[in-house]
Amino acid sequence: MIKVGIIGATGYAGGELARILMGHKDAKIVWYGSRNYIDKKYADVYQNMFQIVDAKCLDDNMEELAKKADVIFTATPQGFCASVISEAILADTKIVDLSADFRIKDVDTYEKWYGIQHKSPQFIEDAVYGLCEINREDVKGARLVANPGCYTTCSILTAYPLAKEGLIDMSTLIIDAKSGTSGAGRGAKVGNLYCEVNENIKAYGVASHRHTPEIEEQLGYAAKEDVRISFTPHLVPMNRGILATEYATLTKQTTYEEVKAVYDKYYKEEKFIRVLDEGICPETKWVEGSNYVDINFKIDPRTNRIIMMGAIDNLVKGAAGQAVQNMNLMFGLPESEGLELVPMFP
Amino acid sequence: MIKVGIIGATGYAGGELARILMGHKDAKIVWYGSRNYIDKKYADVYQNMFQIVDAKCLDDNMEELAKKADVIFTATPQGFCASVISEAILADTKIVDLSADFRIKDVDTYEKWYGIQHKSPQFIEDAVYGLCEINREDVKGARLVANPGCYTTCSILTAYPLAKEGLIDMSTLIIDAKSGTSGAGRGAKVGNLYCEVNENIKAYGVASHRHTPEIEEQLGYAAKEDVRISFTPHLVPMNRGILATEYATLTKQTTYEEVKAVYDKYYKEEKFIRVLDEGICPETKWVEGSNYVDINFKIDPRTNRIIMMGAIDNLVKGAAGQAVQNMNLMFGLPESEGLELVPMFP
Amino acid sequence: MIKVGIIGATGYAGGELARILMGHKDAKIVWYGSRNYIDKKYADVYQNMFQIVDAKCLDDNMEELAKKADVIFTATPQGFCASVISEAILADTKIVDLSADFRIKDVDTYEKWYGIQHKSPQFIEDAVYGLCEINREDVKGARLVANPGCYTTCSILTAYPLAKEGLIDMSTLIIDAKSGTSGAGRGAKVGNLYCEVNENIKAYGVASHRHTPEIEEQLGYAAKEDVRISFTPHLVPMNRGILATEYATLTKQTTYEEVKAVYDKYYKEEKFIRVLDEGICPETKWVEGSNYVDINFKIDPRTNRIIMMGAIDNLVKGAAGQAVQNMNLMFGLPESEGLELVPMFP
Amino acid sequence: MIKVGIIGATGYAGGELARILMGHKDAKIVWYGSRNYIDKKYADVYQNMFQIVDAKCLDDNMEELAKKADVIFTATPQGFCASVISEAILADTKIVDLSADFRIKDVDTYEKWYGIQHKSPQFIEDAVYGLCEINREDVKGARLVANPGCYTTCSILTAYPLAKEGLIDMSTLIIDAKSGTSGAGRGAKVGNLYCEVNENIKAYGVASHRHTPEIEEQLGYAAKEDVRISFTPHLVPMNRGILATEYATLTKQTTYEEVKAVYDKYYKEEKFIRVLDEGICPETKWVEGSNYVDINFKIDPRTNRIIMMGAIDNLVKGAAGQAVQNMNLMFGLPESEGLELVPMFP
Repeated sequence: MIKVGIIGATGYAGGELARILMGHKDAKIVWYGSRNYIDKKYADVYQNMFQIVDAKCLDDNMEELAKKADVIFTATPQGFCASVISEAILADTKIVDLSADFRIKDVDTYEKWYGIQHKSPQFIEDAVYGLCEINREDVKGARLVANPGCYTTCSILTAYPLAKEGLIDMSTLIIDAKSGTSGAGRGAKVGNLYCEVNENIKAYGVASHRHTPEIEEQLGYAAKEDVRISFTPHLVPMNRGILATEYATLTKQTTYEEVKAVYDKYYKEEKFIRVLDEGICPETKWVEGSNYVDINFKIDPRTNRIIMMGAIDNLVKGAAGQAVQNMNLMFGLPESEGLELVPMFP
Repeated sequence: MIKVGIIGATGYAGGELARILMGHKDAKIVWYGSRNYIDKKYADVYQNMFQIVDAKCLDDNMEELAKKADVIFTATPQGFCASVISEAILADTKIVDLSADFRIKDVDTYEKWYGIQHKSPQFIEDAVYGLCEINREDVKGARLVANPGCYTTCSILTAYPLAKEGLIDMSTLIIDAKSGTSGAGRGAKVGNLYCEVNENIKAYGVASHRHTPEIEEQLGYAAKEDVRISFTPHLVPMNRGILATEYATLTKQTTYEEVKAVYDKYYKEEKFIRVLDEGICPETKWVEGSNYVDINFKIDPRTNRIIMMGAIDNLVKGAAGQAVQNMNLMFGLPESEGLELVPMFP
Repeated sequence: MIKVGIIGATGYAGGELARILMGHKDAKIVWYGSRNYIDKKYADVYQNMFQIVDAKCLDDNMEELAKKADVIFTATPQGFCASVISEAILADTKIVDLSADFRIKDVDTYEKWYGIQHKSPQFIEDAVYGLCEINREDVKGARLVANPGCYTTCSILTAYPLAKEGLIDMSTLIIDAKSGTSGAGRGAKVGNLYCEVNENIKAYGVASHRHTPEIEEQLGYAAKEDVRISFTPHLVPMNRGILATEYATLTKQTTYEEVKAVYDKYYKEEKFIRVLDEGICPETKWVEGSNYVDINFKIDPRTNRIIMMGAIDNLVKGAAGQAVQNMNLMFGLPESEGLELVPMFP
Repeated sequence: MIKVGIIGATGYAGGELARILMGHKDAKIVWYGSRNYIDKKYADVYQNMFQIVDAKCLDDNMEELAKKADVIFTATPQGFCASVISEAILADTKIVDLSADFRIKDVDTYEKWYGIQHKSPQFIEDAVYGLCEINREDVKGARLVANPGCYTTCSILTAYPLAKEGLIDMSTLIIDAKSGTSGAGRGAKVGNLYCEVNENIKAYGVASHRHTPEIEEQLGYAAKEDVRISFTPHLVPMNRGILATEYATLTKQTTYEEVKAVYDKYYKEEKFIRVLDEGICPETKWVEGSNYVDINFKIDPRTNRIIMMGAIDNLVKGAAGQAVQNMNLMFGLPESEGLELVPMFP
């Protein structure tokens, strides 16, 4: 039984980790860390856990936690993990960091986009970017996994096979992404109030969102070239879900079957990636509560572009589910253990 | 492995049965019945089931199905089950009927409120009202279970201990219930369009809703008297969830502790009923996707009334979850098998 | 041209006052008061007002404002108006207070329910309770109007004619009310975040909500007896709207026509009250954005109860619209000036 | 007083026409046409109009209507207007057609994208494309106006000045648009049910939506070249609103100020177009219920692209509001008469 500690257990991603791990046969949460709710019963913060979780929230004592837990999930704002990680801690435990601290290999890029100094650049090299379907083998041996961002997971996986196989001109890639509001976290801000989000849609972080360099770096590895994309996130009045609509010019005339074959090459054996039947557009509702990524595409011969679409649940495949998937790989468990979650509809 | 047939598999309750049974270790769906989608792949109707369910939808051939399945769930409009049930079928299989056909013991009452003639009154006596927490022992031996209505489940369980113990004056009981829109089914009606339901709330079926006599009959058994209630359902802009707010005059001055003790007497050992801590009002979101019933109450000494509140997921405890709970009891399985669903938040 | 000052202009009720007054021929806003946004452009707080309102937000200087404005709307938390009002101010201007400070005639009741000391009880006698349809004549001569609460307006008007005419047993009156989230204000609280409210419904303030004594006092005047009610508010996932479902035992056997005649007696000439056709249940969407109150009822002979339903837009008839209606009366303008707002659907 | 007839008065656009015209000083509705609700009171279909509109719904008798009305709005499916229009009718009345029948000058293009034969191609030449801000002078003299589509209005106006001035490479233009559900109309379809749309987002009509050629034609006129765009509409869980996010490569290095100056050149005097302050992203909520188009842009020097954003209320500027704006121009009235609608927030 793997002993799990969560730092940031009362955020939305932390709460989803708890939900998923309740159904995991080989893992057990031993630490519900939450700086804001120390000594408060976890189920008093998340009443859905009433009579399911009896534990109280604890402080962020990483040293103590490292001794108690086989793995720590840090579902915390950027900067936290980098500021507390150490060789001593990694000697005692493994870490899956759900923040951006170790996602980007280039420190300057990180510091520029996030506007903070990186406190532990010495661990960046060591960290494995935990996009399981792409870095599976590396994750298996990792002691520190950088769990990808929500927009990033969806954006990368949707375009990855085509980038890898050179089917699209990377300089033309545009990603227009739409997210449910849980992606904004549980902080009390006017902009996230019900009345401000409901009956509304807007773009934000235009040409400046922090997931941009993460997408560029990973797709750059795939395409074996420097990549610069346009990425525009939007806030949608729903709790969960990310839809990425991606546009790129094809490098040559291509048929549906050719593109489908490329997707199949990479994803046919992937349990959590579903390339839908021709003509079916992914909908976030069809993956809600699950670890699936639903993908499809349409070739537009009029413009010689391909339009790719990907949908995930931002809290599952975009955060907690992927973190558990990484944990499973790191501990040699079946990759889908605890993640056989059937999407909930409606 | 129990072989399960579903009639009405493409309705919302049918879809939820499929979702839940996917996670049931001892049951397997062998028949996805759907008159409207015969020969269409089930996953083409519910894309959340893509690559999870491969089966096609089948017609409603009860005789054939009875031979194939150990149990049939009829998630169909009222009248269907009564029109197809027979001794021959019940000799081959068990039935859990999610419609109202066998819920009400008095045929006249059924025919009056539903406005149709009952086609098989001879099976009414035989049928067990499948509110597991109350009729557990009877369900175990049943071959035909009448699965309670969604409003009914929530309304009855919220008031049951107080009715049973004589703490409330039954002639004063008023139930004001609020339901998500999935309770209205998947039929294409203008009144259920997104734009008509969204940003809106209304009462409907005032003093005439069909769940009224069902609640009255069951609470009458508990109180050992004829019961007449006011029951008002409301349509709320959300997919899932029922909240029942119930008002009754106390038969004598009573304290919080006394009432709490009565709830505990009946529900302390019930896995799926959670009587919340003092002062916490049930919220439908805290039970979403799960089989829980969350209950609490407040005594108002100013009016000598008690206000009781109960919350369920209408598609789980109010339909599919309870049906599976009944199946588990009928087949001697652990009652919570397949139902250890942690509520999803947010 | 009436010069209007608003204190609390950046709250939701304040914003709605601005919206409505933009369309008022004889009124002009001269002061957008907002302690939190001093010197910020009003349209930067409410972008809907971009290029419509050029003014900046100002501090709460009542003395200065009293000299500039013919009428001040205080859309502020309870306690504010009572703490700043004075004879000097009322010598210069009229006040419509949207808070609870002057709604309740009994100071002890106010202090008990609101948990604060009343700072200016000497003005309570003077204040007119601004439920225009009931106190029209008094409002005309008022210099201080206590604008009714949102739940209150809806709850009182729905039951008023029957209370006045003795058709219902006031000791049996139960009000189950449902409100959109704008009623909770624009403060940044976790409980009002999109993800917490969406797909959720709950009761709150059970048997303790502050609008209770206000409803009791006013219906007590109508019924000419002390009134004690059960009042339960609920939070509904929508921006605007209040629906009150009210239950009472009839004092004698009564027909639809008799009750209808009573409603007509009081409301037939009321422009903003619409008693719907028989069998039509009020829906909040049908009054959205308007000053209407939609009312209907159903007699239930089985229980000898009447179920009354009323719907308003909480920000219009429940706050800003009614405030403007009061202003119109106070200044001798046509009562509906600026309020000929057609409900927006969908 | 202009006498107005509406065909299709019970659709969402028809209902919005009625709402807006109620507040128009110089127009009066004389005919509520609705094939599906003949002889039913209009207010029974749209209860928001209870006690506001007394009229009954009438059949589609164009000849009779042409004699009664000074202008007819056809808020009908494509094909209707083309099949009933005639010289005789146009001799008696003017027409504002809210369908696509006369929007596209090239009949082949129309027939290919809409899949129907055009019944009255002889009137296409005559018809004026009613995008008032661009074709104002032509609209003034028109007897037949083709009211633009909702996506189209938003998409074109957002990019128009840059297309006109050659600032963007038209071959790179990509429009990713998001619409509220009222755009799908009031027809009873499973896909538009509350439970299917709520908590969900999806693309649809990818590379095949019928508004594509309309956008291409109009932007082609502006750019003075053939234009081929990628246009992807999405269905968003809200009632109203369209947001268009548009991407294009700049033809030369350009500053914020230069682009702003171009927008100002075309829109500074336009009452209904608001180019927001730098850095503010348009939100559909800020224009809800109004005739405004909110626009802004961001230059991304990393990719040499500009990202433009535009927001409208699809039922107002995207349908009924623009239709009234056209009517005002056609009859020599002030262009904003009846359209001084302040956006409703929240």
